[in-house]
Amino acid sequence: QLADLMEPLHAADIADLLEQINAYDRKRLIQLYGREFEGEILSELDENIREEVIAILNPVVLAEAVRDLESDDVVDLIEDLEEPQQEAILEALEDSDRIAVEQSMSFPENSAGRLMQREVVMAPEHWNVGQVIDFMRESDDLPEQFYHVVLVDPRLRPVGNVTLGRIMGSPRNVQISDLMEETFEAFSADLDEEDVAYAFNQYHLISAPVVDGNGRLVGVITIDDAMAVLDEEHEEDILRLAGVGEESSLSDRVMDTTKKRFPWLAVNLVTAILASLVIAQFEETIAGFVALAVLMPIVASMGGNAGTQSLTVAVRALATRDLTGSNVWRVIRRETLVGLINGAVFAIVMALIGIVWFGSPLLGAVIAISMVINLVVAGLAGTIIPIVLDKLKIDPALASGAFVTTVTDVVGFFAFLGLAAMILL
Amino acid sequence: QLADLMEPLHAADIADLLEQINAYDRKRLIQLYGREFEGEILSELDENIREEVIAILNPVVLAEAVRDLESDDVVDLIEDLEEPQQEAILEALEDSDRIAVEQSMSFPENSAGRLMQREVVMAPEHWNVGQVIDFMRESDDLPEQFYHVVLVDPRLRPVGNVTLGRIMGSPRNVQISDLMEETFEAFSADLDEEDVAYAFNQYHLISAPVVDGNGRLVGVITIDDAMAVLDEEHEEDILRLAGVGEESSLSDRVMDTTKKRFPWLAVNLVTAILASLVIAQFEETIAGFVALAVLMPIVASMGGNAGTQSLTVAVRALATRDLTGSNVWRVIRRETLVGLINGAVFAIVMALIGIVWFGSPLLGAVIAISMVINLVVAGLAGTIIPIVLDKLKIDPALASGAFVTTVTDVVGFFAFLGLAAMILL
Ligand SMILES: [Mg+2]
Ligand SMILES: [Mg+2]
Ligand SMILES: [Mg+2]
Ligand SMILES: [Mg+2]
Ligand SMILES: [Mg+2]
Ligand SMILES: [Mg+2]
Ligand SMILES: [Mg+2]
Ligand SMILES: [Mg+2]
Ligand SMILES: [Mg+2]
Ligand SMILES: [Mg+2]
Ligand SMILES: [Mg+2]
Ligand SMILES: [Mg+2]
Ligand SMILES: [Mg+2]
Repeated sequence: QLADLMEPLHAADIADLLEQINAYDRKRLIQLYGREFEGEILSELDENIREEVIAILNPVVLAEAVRDLESDDVVDLIEDLEEPQQEAILEALEDSDRIAVEQSMSFPENSAGRLMQREVVMAPEHWNVGQVIDFMRESDDLPEQFYHVVLVDPRLRPVGNVTLGRIMGSPRNVQISDLMEETFEAFSADLDEEDVAYAFNQYHLISAPVVDGNGRLVGVITIDDAMAVLDEEHEEDILRLAGVGEESSLSDRVMDTTKKRFPWLAVNLVTAILASLVIAQFEETIAGFVALAVLMPIVASMGGNAGTQSLTVAVRALATRDLTGSNVWRVIRRETLVGLINGAVFAIVMALIGIVWFGSPLLGAVIAISMVINLVVAGLAGTIIPIVLDKLKIDPALASGAFVTTVTDVVGFFAFLGLAAMILL
Repeated sequence: QLADLMEPLHAADIADLLEQINAYDRKRLIQLYGREFEGEILSELDENIREEVIAILNPVVLAEAVRDLESDDVVDLIEDLEEPQQEAILEALEDSDRIAVEQSMSFPENSAGRLMQREVVMAPEHWNVGQVIDFMRESDDLPEQFYHVVLVDPRLRPVGNVTLGRIMGSPRNVQISDLMEETFEAFSADLDEEDVAYAFNQYHLISAPVVDGNGRLVGVITIDDAMAVLDEEHEEDILRLAGVGEESSLSDRVMDTTKKRFPWLAVNLVTAILASLVIAQFEETIAGFVALAVLMPIVASMGGNAGTQSLTVAVRALATRDLTGSNVWRVIRRETLVGLINGAVFAIVMALIGIVWFGSPLLGAVIAISMVINLVVAGLAGTIIPIVLDKLKIDPALASGAFVTTVTDVVGFFAFLGLAAMILL
């Protein structure tokens, strides 16, 4: 009766359910599930959990499950599995499907070739609408989902897309090539999937052909898979910005999570020690005027926040390709001016606090001047560092944060304590 | 000849180009562009720039441009415009289109009703394939893009979707209702677009009908528009996490940007002052042992970083609906343990630094213990705060950062200086 209970649920929801319960319940649920297991549930599962579930499943049930899937889903399923599990799944496939999957697997990880499905509906460019419809009626293995007929030349090179809607809306004698869409993108099979997702989003593509090195049609990518890539790229960016290993997931165990978080905390420790070394230069100043120790984290913290604002805007704009050579100077100038203006406003606030709290106009002046300096530096560093990293082909989401906060910490403490040493003592 | 140069560019690329040049060049370019301006360029433009461009365009050219667009694109175009610009565009439309747009505009902002296009291809559920094809051949205004025929009952309530591919692959005498897709979602017109985007991504939808309060079909949402929403929601999250007004864009002017960044810096100033108040309680301790001032930012900084890691994972998991009642305790437990283990490792490192740098094992002990405390608190606060905010219907991306870093700053300074006061003096 469990299967009945799960019946109305979509595979993606069952996968989520399996991810959210604990390992013990998961094992029991899958064993209760029994003889049939929808292949799509496997596709939807988180990588960690997927390996676990595959290991639990009866090999006959597993074989049955994967035989339902389109080639792109099989590729996605096996590409992260260990060798023996991969083999088991490949052997379960029919010969033609296995060859299709193996060909996809020959393209680099995260490439268009891995993302595409091999099941393509194509037609010679000289056909008319009637011929295309008759061909489709006769073929008995049309893909479950497709949105275009890809027109190809005699050497199987794609020349254009025709939407099914236009074919169906046209009389049988219309030449199919007269119905081609205006926007047409074909992707090279070794293109990065990130570029594919960008193009789908930018040009409102629904499906697009993939070609091999000779320009021959080898598969087609559909928008639902491009949307999933866009979502993954988002996740990667947001987690990298926070210094969390981007491969991490909610179902990671404690030790895996600890290990993935560790490197970024270690980097942060180094930058925090750098800041401490700056402070150590001014021990005497602080000993002479302990209020400095009370106020000094404020300037560094404001700089860190302003820097994070600028760098996040820059990282996002680089990801969406909105920050380019034609506006980079304008953006740098803007961020610097924003730092200057906000710095000036907070300088006034802090000067007043310095005077009211500690009764010292000079202390107010020190904190005000260092606030302006640090917020201007934050705007500059927060913009320039991600841009430079991007030029160096380092993901700006990954490394900008550590650099920018190092700069704002060091500059913040140095400016504040240095000015204090000059002015107050 | 400029128009010739731009001709091969996609509207989305022309829009990007217009966004990236400065206002003066933009004005000149548009005036050179002359008599024709593709409506889709307007759709693709950033909101700020869009208003500017609409103001520059000759009213006749503008009217021509918007008449090309599907109803959803017109809605997206006008919903953020000022009243007079809105009127100008509505008047340019044909009567039937204007009514369609006005009906969409009657649904709340960011709802399914605003996202849908009114152009729907529907068929009575009792038709056969031949009837559907003949109907489509006869109708002369099929939408440019559509992927399903929506089957409706006699009261115009959608009962299922049939993909065009299955219709074309079937003989004329097959009942259309035998070809219905298994997965079928219809959205209520006032559903939040964020939920729509989630469902498209979760269930791999390509298009889905939208119904009014009586369950009658009023429009259809296509995946390209859902993908754009997913992308916007992501941008909102990433910018909110960084304390940047989520409506901000790269083309904002200096003063707008300054104003949007200000509130979060002000919040940060308050939290930094709170931390300073904690430090102020220990002025005497610091005066007696200045090394404390040198080391104290380290503990707070490590806590802030660890807290940000935890909160980002929680915020993302809440957005993808992977963090639910069934795993919330497991996640809290995990994050706390991760904090404990990483805290212990860094405690050892810092204890050694305390001993080597300052020659004081007691100082080493103080920093080690406070490191463990703060990283455990970071894991707890970083998880619980976003979850509580989410329960209170406050966007966790928006407010978690300020709360979590306040907690880690206050706890970090208090634990470190408090222990120092007890142990060292
Ligand atoms: Mg899932
Ligand atoms: Mg993959
Ligand atoms: Mg990538
Ligand atoms: Mg697919
Ligand atoms: Mg990326
Ligand atoms: Mg763009
Ligand atoms: Mg754009
Ligand atoms: Mg459109
Ligand atoms: Mg909108
Ligand atoms: Mg929203
Ligand atoms: Mg649309
Ligand atoms: Mg949101
Ligand atoms: Mg999910």
